[in-house]
Amino acid sequence: MKVLIIVAHPRSDSLTMNITNKFAEGLRAAGHEYEIADLYRENFNPVLLPQDEPDWNNESKVYSDEELRKAYSDEVTREMERIQSSDAIVMIFPVWWYSFPAIMKGYIDRVWNMGFAYGGAKLPVNKIRWIPLVGDTQEHFKKRDYDAMIEKYMNIGIAQYIGVNDSEVNFMYNTLGEFEDNQEENLNSHYKKHLDEAYKLGYTF
Amino acid sequence: MKVLIIVAHPRSDSLTMNITNKFAEGLRAAGHEYEIADLYRENFNPVLLPQDEPDWNNESKVYSDEELRKAYSDEVTREMERIQSSDAIVMIFPVWWYSFPAIMKGYIDRVWNMGFAYGGAKLPVNKIRWIPLVGDTQEHFKKRDYDAMIEKYMNIGIAQYIGVNDSEVNFMYNTLGEFEDNQEENLNSHYKKHLDEAYKLGYTF
Repeated sequence: MKVLIIVAHPRSDSLTMNITNKFAEGLRAAGHEYEIADLYRENFNPVLLPQDEPDWNNESKVYSDEELRKAYSDEVTREMERIQSSDAIVMIFPVWWYSFPAIMKGYIDRVWNMGFAYGGAKLPVNKIRWIPLVGDTQEHFKKRDYDAMIEKYMNIGIAQYIGVNDSEVNFMYNTLGEFEDNQEENLNSHYKKHLDEAYKLGYTF
Repeated sequence: MKVLIIVAHPRSDSLTMNITNKFAEGLRAAGHEYEIADLYRENFNPVLLPQDEPDWNNESKVYSDEELRKAYSDEVTREMERIQSSDAIVMIFPVWWYSFPAIMKGYIDRVWNMGFAYGGAKLPVNKIRWIPLVGDTQEHFKKRDYDAMIEKYMNIGIAQYIGVNDSEVNFMYNTLGEFEDNQEENLNSHYKKHLDEAYKLGYTF
């Protein structure tokens, strides 16, 4: 399987990026191919401009296999091509305000566009996995059903809308390690647990 | 009352911007002051860079009334000042993927930061109103409880977290007008209804 890993974090030494690399290692060990769309390092521009607005009255602005119509901006067209050459997408990101970092939200706003991902089309992959890194503990998060809110948003609100029914959210909790007992002592083993889990998610993809 | 209206839409002739202007008219008629933060026209950069990351180990990176510490980037500090000189905030935006456009998500990511909006602080306003423009009908939206999902996200997940308990979501539905009967005939009166509602929301603020 060819997997497109889309990742968003301002620092390349972050836990998010380390988890991404471990996940990719697991994929490779299992014989999958992958490509990493590192939104920060690629300077992806998340601000949707009029050229990429869904044009509700213009069905000719539809991307198709046969003919890649250049109605969308070059940056968006390039990302559409990258998705089209993939079988699955994995989104890895820190949860900021119970959602994506803006740079990743803008990737969805701009690239998963009408005519490509919905509106007579479906996103041309068969599987999506979301790997949100949550600073909070699972216990705190579940207490207010934020996990259910995010799962509904990502699996139903987004994935189902773009025709990808095989969608799951794999939360990684307590990623700041601040709720661990004996914080300093255990931080490395705490992170190692996340990295091992990432490898496993890749290996069993 | 001094109201900061934060608005996000790629086109200045959009319904979102027209609703913003009508809302402002209503505010003025009722004797309020306002300022519009037009994120698109002001070229706000929504991409959080390391300088604006919450620094969980550095409490000195706290913005206070007495001394505006310049630990955050200039753009963020400027927005913090704008919020601090306001009594209330109103967010007006089209709903894209059941959430904010990326440019507005990034405003929250970057500006409503630790030490300013939470973490020993509260956002220095007493009232927030969210005015999301929803392309879908209220009926379709309610069927899957997307209104409840968004209300929970904005009122509890965000507003309550930053210490602003007076928070309400005022949805505007069917903003593309595509679900109206006799669409072309009624589109202007349909939009007029929204504009009148916006004026009223401002006037009764």
